[in-house]
Amino acid sequence: MSPFSSQFLQLLLLILCSLSLSFGQPHPLDPLTPSEISAIRTIIKSSSINSTSFSFHYVGLEEPDKQTFLSWHSNPTAHPILPRQAFVILRAGGQTHELYVDITNNCIASHRVRSGNGYPTLNMEEQNAVTLLTFNYTPFVESVKKRGVDLKDVVCSTYTVGWNGERDKGRVIKLQCFVVGETANIYMRPLEGITILADLEAMEILEYLDRIIVPVPTATGTDYRASRQMPPYGPRGNPVVVTQPEGKGFTVSGNVVRWANWALHVGFDARAGLVISHASVLNDENNEYRSVLYKSYVSEICVPYMDPSEEWYFKAFFDYGDYGFGPLSSSLEPMIDCPPNAEYMDGYYANGDGSPVHIPNVICIFERYAGDPSWRHTEILIPGKVITEAREEVSLVVRTVTTLGNYDYVLDWEFKTSGSIKVWVGLTGMMEVRGTDYSHAKEIRGEQHGELVAPNTIGVYHDHYISYHLDLDIAGTTNSFVKANLKTVRVNGGKTPRKSYWTTVKETATTEADARVDFHTAAPAELLFVNPSVKTKLGNTVGYRLISSSAAATSLLTDDDYPLIRAAYTKKQLWVTPYNKRDKWVSGLYADQSHGDDNLAAWSMRNRSIENTDIVLWYTMGIHHIPSQEDFPLMSMLSCGFELRPFNFFDRNPLIKTQPFSKGRWAT
Amino acid sequence: MSPFSSQFLQLLLLILCSLSLSFGQPHPLDPLTPSEISAIRTIIKSSSINSTSFSFHYVGLEEPDKQTFLSWHSNPTAHPILPRQAFVILRAGGQTHELYVDITNNCIASHRVRSGNGYPTLNMEEQNAVTLLTFNYTPFVESVKKRGVDLKDVVCSTYTVGWNGERDKGRVIKLQCFVVGETANIYMRPLEGITILADLEAMEILEYLDRIIVPVPTATGTDYRASRQMPPYGPRGNPVVVTQPEGKGFTVSGNVVRWANWALHVGFDARAGLVISHASVLNDENNEYRSVLYKSYVSEICVPYMDPSEEWYFKAFFDYGDYGFGPLSSSLEPMIDCPPNAEYMDGYYANGDGSPVHIPNVICIFERYAGDPSWRHTEILIPGKVITEAREEVSLVVRTVTTLGNYDYVLDWEFKTSGSIKVWVGLTGMMEVRGTDYSHAKEIRGEQHGELVAPNTIGVYHDHYISYHLDLDIAGTTNSFVKANLKTVRVNGGKTPRKSYWTTVKETATTEADARVDFHTAAPAELLFVNPSVKTKLGNTVGYRLISSSAAATSLLTDDDYPLIRAAYTKKQLWVTPYNKRDKWVSGLYADQSHGDDNLAAWSMRNRSIENTDIVLWYTMGIHHIPSQEDFPLMSMLSCGFELRPFNFFDRNPLIKTQPFSKGRWAT
Repeated sequence: MSPFSSQFLQLLLLILCSLSLSFGQPHPLDPLTPSEISAIRTIIKSSSINSTSFSFHYVGLEEPDKQTFLSWHSNPTAHPILPRQAFVILRAGGQTHELYVDITNNCIASHRVRSGNGYPTLNMEEQNAVTLLTFNYTPFVESVKKRGVDLKDVVCSTYTVGWNGERDKGRVIKLQCFVVGETANIYMRPLEGITILADLEAMEILEYLDRIIVPVPTATGTDYRASRQMPPYGPRGNPVVVTQPEGKGFTVSGNVVRWANWALHVGFDARAGLVISHASVLNDENNEYRSVLYKSYVSEICVPYMDPSEEWYFKAFFDYGDYGFGPLSSSLEPMIDCPPNAEYMDGYYANGDGSPVHIPNVICIFERYAGDPSWRHTEILIPGKVITEAREEVSLVVRTVTTLGNYDYVLDWEFKTSGSIKVWVGLTGMMEVRGTDYSHAKEIRGEQHGELVAPNTIGVYHDHYISYHLDLDIAGTTNSFVKANLKTVRVNGGKTPRKSYWTTVKETATTEADARVDFHTAAPAELLFVNPSVKTKLGNTVGYRLISSSAAATSLLTDDDYPLIRAAYTKKQLWVTPYNKRDKWVSGLYADQSHGDDNLAAWSMRNRSIENTDIVLWYTMGIHHIPSQEDFPLMSMLSCGFELRPFNFFDRNPLIKTQPFSKGRWAT
Repeated sequence: MSPFSSQFLQLLLLILCSLSLSFGQPHPLDPLTPSEISAIRTIIKSSSINSTSFSFHYVGLEEPDKQTFLSWHSNPTAHPILPRQAFVILRAGGQTHELYVDITNNCIASHRVRSGNGYPTLNMEEQNAVTLLTFNYTPFVESVKKRGVDLKDVVCSTYTVGWNGERDKGRVIKLQCFVVGETANIYMRPLEGITILADLEAMEILEYLDRIIVPVPTATGTDYRASRQMPPYGPRGNPVVVTQPEGKGFTVSGNVVRWANWALHVGFDARAGLVISHASVLNDENNEYRSVLYKSYVSEICVPYMDPSEEWYFKAFFDYGDYGFGPLSSSLEPMIDCPPNAEYMDGYYANGDGSPVHIPNVICIFERYAGDPSWRHTEILIPGKVITEAREEVSLVVRTVTTLGNYDYVLDWEFKTSGSIKVWVGLTGMMEVRGTDYSHAKEIRGEQHGELVAPNTIGVYHDHYISYHLDLDIAGTTNSFVKANLKTVRVNGGKTPRKSYWTTVKETATTEADARVDFHTAAPAELLFVNPSVKTKLGNTVGYRLISSSAAATSLLTDDDYPLIRAAYTKKQLWVTPYNKRDKWVSGLYADQSHGDDNLAAWSMRNRSIENTDIVLWYTMGIHHIPSQEDFPLMSMLSCGFELRPFNFFDRNPLIKTQPFSKGRWAT
């Protein structure tokens, strides 16, 4: 229950919006600058929100409405500067506060206290603080001693508790601890069998259970740092050095990237990380940019584990919603995370105190050449000639890496001159393992919840669901989702001996229910996102098609199981919703301890119309992970991706007229 | 009916095997050299095969038996030189002859006349000759005139007739013709409506039908040659130049390639093209090579079209079986088909006269760096440290390109230091289109068998099935196929609130029937190929897992339709058979006009045991192609691939001990 009347507050705050501050003239979609983040903090700290202590959990750009932005974009000079606004989530007085802060006018434009299930994204400061509680908690100190481990070798980490039908205990968190010892690879050395529940706001340990003792796996062979390796060294090819004698083919102006036939805005958000906005491609017929994506980003990575025991049952993380990309994003290592020809962008987010935190090199942008042609043909039929014609494939990659505790995800958006967008995710980093008595496979008895990957080390079965928010605006905002179903036609008494063939039957999804696709059970279909009112010269409807990923796992949990209720959207790979500026997070705005009442599946139950309107594609790549010894002590990257490929978006292949690179220049 | 008694002939020929010739000491798996091909021709021409005219349709290495080879390989110096043999298919006297030629001993080791359905692969000479018949065939000359086309602008191509229930007419072929005019892109300018059936051996036109006249599509915009393009030019990125300051990381000794932890033999076959043999990877524990693949290659590319009309119903090509890779392979264009750091191998095949034909640069080998890490991690949990550790991903690519008339396939085998093999296919080149009256989508009436991609041009619906022969020998020849099925377990009355999870239930395929997998209907499973008698130190069974492709289409044709009967294996993506040296071609040894009685599906019906024995994985990638305007006049490459990834093959991730490249060297 809110002690504030939000109507009253809004009124109060709006009339206070008067002092106009200038921070230059950013692009309306630019992420918040450090000075804007500081200004937001100052505005809030000096406001009437009456709490002695409050903590920041999200501070992000509140974008202008789409139509406002598009109108501005069509003629920026004719418009006034769009006001800069931020959306802020605070915890204060044991409550969650949502604020819209008008940065331009230096005031809080609206403020309400949130009610409902779920809690905001954790901040780093409270996570750091809560893990330190363990070291002065006598039962834990004794548990560590009982295991023959030196307390100063122990580190602990926070594990969101999810929701498993229990009554609300407030903002609680579980802690799991590891042994550093001689290795940096803490994740391979769990202090198994201990359950610790702590209150993030009272900053105290609420419950403690030391249930089972199993050996802490040895540090031997777990450290991955180059400095700790001894010969014989592992295999590698010879270095391949990439250079660009004509320089980079892209320009970065603020956050707007232009490359070949593409223009896009590259932003950064504390929860989503990399955000691609307003990606448009040149229409070769009239040399004008035509929109493809209004906004796209990873909306959530959900990782449920498959061990129902006391220490593991609750593990079903919403990595973005629980922890946020901001605090967990990695500064990219030049030359390794990205190639030498990459350019970098920094990112900023607000810490728990509301102050800006700088993440250098959080995004990299580079031109990729992997040795492939973009198209080719050899023609031998024309008498007296052998024609071989081909073009080199150079694409543009925009990359971020997020490290969600043990796991690292390399997240790529690859733009191709053909108009295709390939979306890649590379999974690497460490598995979550549980300690076990077993040191050899022959000792294993009964059902396991994972695979023995090293002595005393079980790699626990789990899934990864990487969910993309893809606000496609194909040649404008009014789009439809069309399934071109492949239908077998049986020929009866035909003029030829052929007895069957397939053809296509197009079916436009009218409501959200029509648009839920499970690729495992769906009949074969080409999945098209079209603009019904825009045609090619030839009369075809312009569109893009989705080429799905081989990583197409859907959840195997039962419908009534709590992790599934909270992530019900993981039962289908594809959903389409009407555009709603507020529907950003597949797991809900408040993912931590959410009950599944504000997730994609819940929204979709409204079964709204999605035909010939502004629609959003939600696409989830899924992986069931059965660990193997190769995943120990650190996994080689597993890459998977999907593709958005033009389908009658161009009048013809736009690359035919592309000139080849000078061969001489390539041979340097 | 054979005029020869093959028993008698074999006896006769064997006693003639006496003259020993020496061609150096090739590796037993090396492809036939040009001098060997010439020797084979001489041996056969001077033999007793009594036909005034005979033509060669296949000349390829007859490999030693696997056990013989493995025994030789384990200690080459201790063994005598293995005799070089060839398998040869001839047409002579209206019959198909199969010969085993002993090159070492300069004689025909065996000879039999083949009976049964189907005909051998076409050779180029007969195809060239048969297409020329049209130009002196009055009805065709008149058809061309009737269409207002200049005969000298016309080129024709051969189209295998398949088998559609009709009686055997001998080696017949259909011809389809195109208009060159102002373009090199003949495929976009069909002379539609004409059906020509010709006899390849009598070299005469048997049947002729000019059924419908529709406009020949214009040449405008169809030419893809750089020299024919005018500004404004199409989009491209800036050149990315790759160099290797430390040189190439691989060595090529004869046909044996060694790179990082891999050793493999790269061969070339007139039908299969690129053949990877005896691929082994270093076991980091004992520094010995351990086998992964005994032999792998593309066994067939099957492309059925979906137009049941007179001119198109028979189109269901077995590209490799009908035409063979040899004649249709492309000399790779350095700098475009392969990057500047590539090394090339030549190929040879026998033409219709049995003489060697040289294909320069038919295979390229290069180290690929696409800007990605092979693994990474950032660790922030250890107090006072931020550790970021990663390694650059450099892989080895072995590539060929085949141009099967209109279509070009880029076929890659990518070997990774992690032990993974990624198998890629890139589809590019031209669609097969049919001429139509329609010049705008609004004119279309009734059901179509394709999409309007340009005025008067229908891109016809079709499928691509790329079938791989993968003779896995995981740590030895005795392997099993194990499905680790993911099974949902419901928790009843558990100690925690968790209501479900998944676990794995391993199921070893005992016979061929157990091993047929349709990914659309199969329950989720990890597909493992294991060596049951080899364990890791930890006690796990060594294996590799198959990560399937997103290109997983299966045929939608009815079971009784002729193209389906002939390619029944396209109903499942995965089959496993016991190893049989003769079972090489999924479409059968004689694919042209085959009846489906010698294809993979037919072999599999024997339902042989496949447990703990030498087994072969047959994997088919499938694509349903619904054309779009972007495919006109030439398609941008569509890439798809699958992965063979070690699963408890190594005791741990072999890359942890890999040293990073010197950053300084990368930044040149």
